[in-house]
Amino acid sequence: MKIAILGLGTVGKGVLDVLVNNQKIITARAGEQIIPVAALVRDLAKAKEAIKAYDLANFTLSTNADEILMRDDIDVFVELIGGVDLPRELISTLLKRKKPVVTANKALLAYHRSELEMLAKDTPFGFEASVAGGIPIIKALREGLSANHIEQITGILNGTSNYILTNMMKDGLAFKDALLSAQKLGYAEADPSFDIGGFDAAHKLLILASIAYKLNAKPDDILIEGIENISSDDIYFAQEFGYAIKLLAIAKKSAQSLELRVHPALLEHSKMIAKVDGVMNAVSVWGDCVGESMYYGAGAGAKPTASAVISDLIDIARKIKSPMLGYKDTSLQSGLSLVKSDDLMSKFYLRLRVHDELGVIAKITNIMSQNELSIDSFLQKPNSSKADTTVYFTTHTCKQANVLKSLELIGRENFVVSKPFMIRIEK
Amino acid sequence: MKIAILGLGTVGKGVLDVLVNNQKIITARAGEQIIPVAALVRDLAKAKEAIKAYDLANFTLSTNADEILMRDDIDVFVELIGGVDLPRELISTLLKRKKPVVTANKALLAYHRSELEMLAKDTPFGFEASVAGGIPIIKALREGLSANHIEQITGILNGTSNYILTNMMKDGLAFKDALLSAQKLGYAEADPSFDIGGFDAAHKLLILASIAYKLNAKPDDILIEGIENISSDDIYFAQEFGYAIKLLAIAKKSAQSLELRVHPALLEHSKMIAKVDGVMNAVSVWGDCVGESMYYGAGAGAKPTASAVISDLIDIARKIKSPMLGYKDTSLQSGLSLVKSDDLMSKFYLRLRVHDELGVIAKITNIMSQNELSIDSFLQKPNSSKADTTVYFTTHTCKQANVLKSLELIGRENFVVSKPFMIRIEK
Repeated sequence: MKIAILGLGTVGKGVLDVLVNNQKIITARAGEQIIPVAALVRDLAKAKEAIKAYDLANFTLSTNADEILMRDDIDVFVELIGGVDLPRELISTLLKRKKPVVTANKALLAYHRSELEMLAKDTPFGFEASVAGGIPIIKALREGLSANHIEQITGILNGTSNYILTNMMKDGLAFKDALLSAQKLGYAEADPSFDIGGFDAAHKLLILASIAYKLNAKPDDILIEGIENISSDDIYFAQEFGYAIKLLAIAKKSAQSLELRVHPALLEHSKMIAKVDGVMNAVSVWGDCVGESMYYGAGAGAKPTASAVISDLIDIARKIKSPMLGYKDTSLQSGLSLVKSDDLMSKFYLRLRVHDELGVIAKITNIMSQNELSIDSFLQKPNSSKADTTVYFTTHTCKQANVLKSLELIGRENFVVSKPFMIRIEK
Repeated sequence: MKIAILGLGTVGKGVLDVLVNNQKIITARAGEQIIPVAALVRDLAKAKEAIKAYDLANFTLSTNADEILMRDDIDVFVELIGGVDLPRELISTLLKRKKPVVTANKALLAYHRSELEMLAKDTPFGFEASVAGGIPIIKALREGLSANHIEQITGILNGTSNYILTNMMKDGLAFKDALLSAQKLGYAEADPSFDIGGFDAAHKLLILASIAYKLNAKPDDILIEGIENISSDDIYFAQEFGYAIKLLAIAKKSAQSLELRVHPALLEHSKMIAKVDGVMNAVSVWGDCVGESMYYGAGAGAKPTASAVISDLIDIARKIKSPMLGYKDTSLQSGLSLVKSDDLMSKFYLRLRVHDELGVIAKITNIMSQNELSIDSFLQKPNSSKADTTVYFTTHTCKQANVLKSLELIGRENFVVSKPFMIRIEK
């Protein structure tokens, strides 16, 4: 089976590396050799240097997409260019020509998976690497759990954010120092906003949710909050009360509706997913027959991603083809409507920085009760400095709109020092 | 797709239940309806009662295997009889007739998977339910991680044992009380030896190992130890030094050899698999590209097992057929030899109950050093009763044969009160 790699960056080189080094076991499992014969690259000289280590016979490097795409001797194309528009164009062209494609491109799938599903009806199209790197979660959800109604998916899908939060929690680092440490180790980009803002996790959540629910939502349709505003105060509270703070991607089904949301959350330490630390990813899935199952592993990196890409290639060699999103009838609709953010029901943690003066708590709790927030716990530490103090509340389950309104009203009061902050508490 | 269920026990009824109740989603995912049309049962009257709740049209119950097996209108047979010889005969007959089979039978596979692999070369044969119940670990290993050399598998594969050990650890129960509690809750059989003796976990380990390594070992070939002799002293030590005690099933590859072993082990609390409590199962897999990934969920029960059985049925409906053990060439041999128990290298925990008298520790450590056991830690609590005391050692990595010989020699000494006991420490 001859393959072309479109884009020879970190992951592309990882795929080459594993195909060459694990060739014998891959051939035994695939039933035939998977031979890289061409790559589409940006810089020929750099690419030549990169592949020098591998003794590749008859391997073509080209900067011209057409030159590679139009070759009839290539059986499968591996798209690792990244971005949305160019890959969309290339993959559509290939699928229309019935050429199998494997991709790791989550952004492309977050926006255009419905269109690709139609094109891939009779042509293999693998995207295991697009969610949670080396964890075979697409396969687990689409095939392993196919007998279940999926009740909930809770994922730690962004290693950068989890690394930062873990370092804040375990080493007491401030957010900006933990981010700096992540950047030094190559876990965070120079501009980290895509990761720490929750957008990367949201893309992955949308892919998982379409398999679980056949719901075609877009990133703009769902709640996305990042971890930028988590402070040492929040870490203190979490530790004191037995919580971990994680950036969670959640899909949660009720009778006729579905919540899709990405945000930081307080999670009891006893939950399995709360124990997932550092750059690792994990996805907990609740099915109506199977109960909870969890999938844990490396969510990024050249080799783990290559592991997923090549598993798709081996499936294609084995002539295994699941329906792309797990449904034979691609026109099927879930019938579920998305829950609006305002209507989300949750328990909340509230952190308020206020002047330490008479009547403040009364005013705060007054606003809360007028907006139907019922208090579950309250913490104010004895304050020696006498100037400002931080007060913490947790609420019983209440409506998000009521929480935001309360925080806005409280934020307008003179005794408030900085913008009131909330984190959802996940059960 | 018409199916027959051979054996309408707890799991058989679970499969019926899920097929009926989740019919719509299963049909959407399979691409066609999966219709149960017949069941082979032992007691007709009982079976009639059991299926009354489901409005099954044209459903045949029979106590005669031939009557069901020979029907040409049945597309897939689900074997849930249990035991080895009868299912082996029935499944062989079916596969020879090219009839697809799905089974949850781990004992059958532990002994006869090579023979079945030959028979299932061109015929779908699903056994996802045979290991770790509802966790799709067969699929993950055979397909999801197919690009990897598997370096190690560490599994908690027996829920009964894990429930007992968790209760000893968390609630301070003695072994016999924890077992009683498991029996009361239906987690342990009246005769629990198959579970707590490690045999059930060993069957499952052999299945996973043949997918990972194409090695055809039998239960008799491997080290199997149970949890029957774990005492409150061991629990005390584990808690004091930050360990969990788990019954582990381990496959571990070195250059040319493979360790396959089932035994209780001390595991550092920080490891993900050490956090798996109660009846839950989990499997950690180390692959050379992907690193560690872990799969966690319900390892038994009617509905989780039905989830796995039906996922195999849906794969068959989708015309997905992987090679049974993941290798196209069924005659392939791993070339790995099994490491003999005596040659196993490990760190060990030793528990000795001795008379509290002069020179005892000198004599013990003398024997240990003569047998090349290097001590890593030693604990003897101050002893107020003055009669007997428990002393604890941990060793650096050493050879199992040397540990057993030392314990035998120490056990012969007059100052020893009860048989010296060891638990391996897993890194």
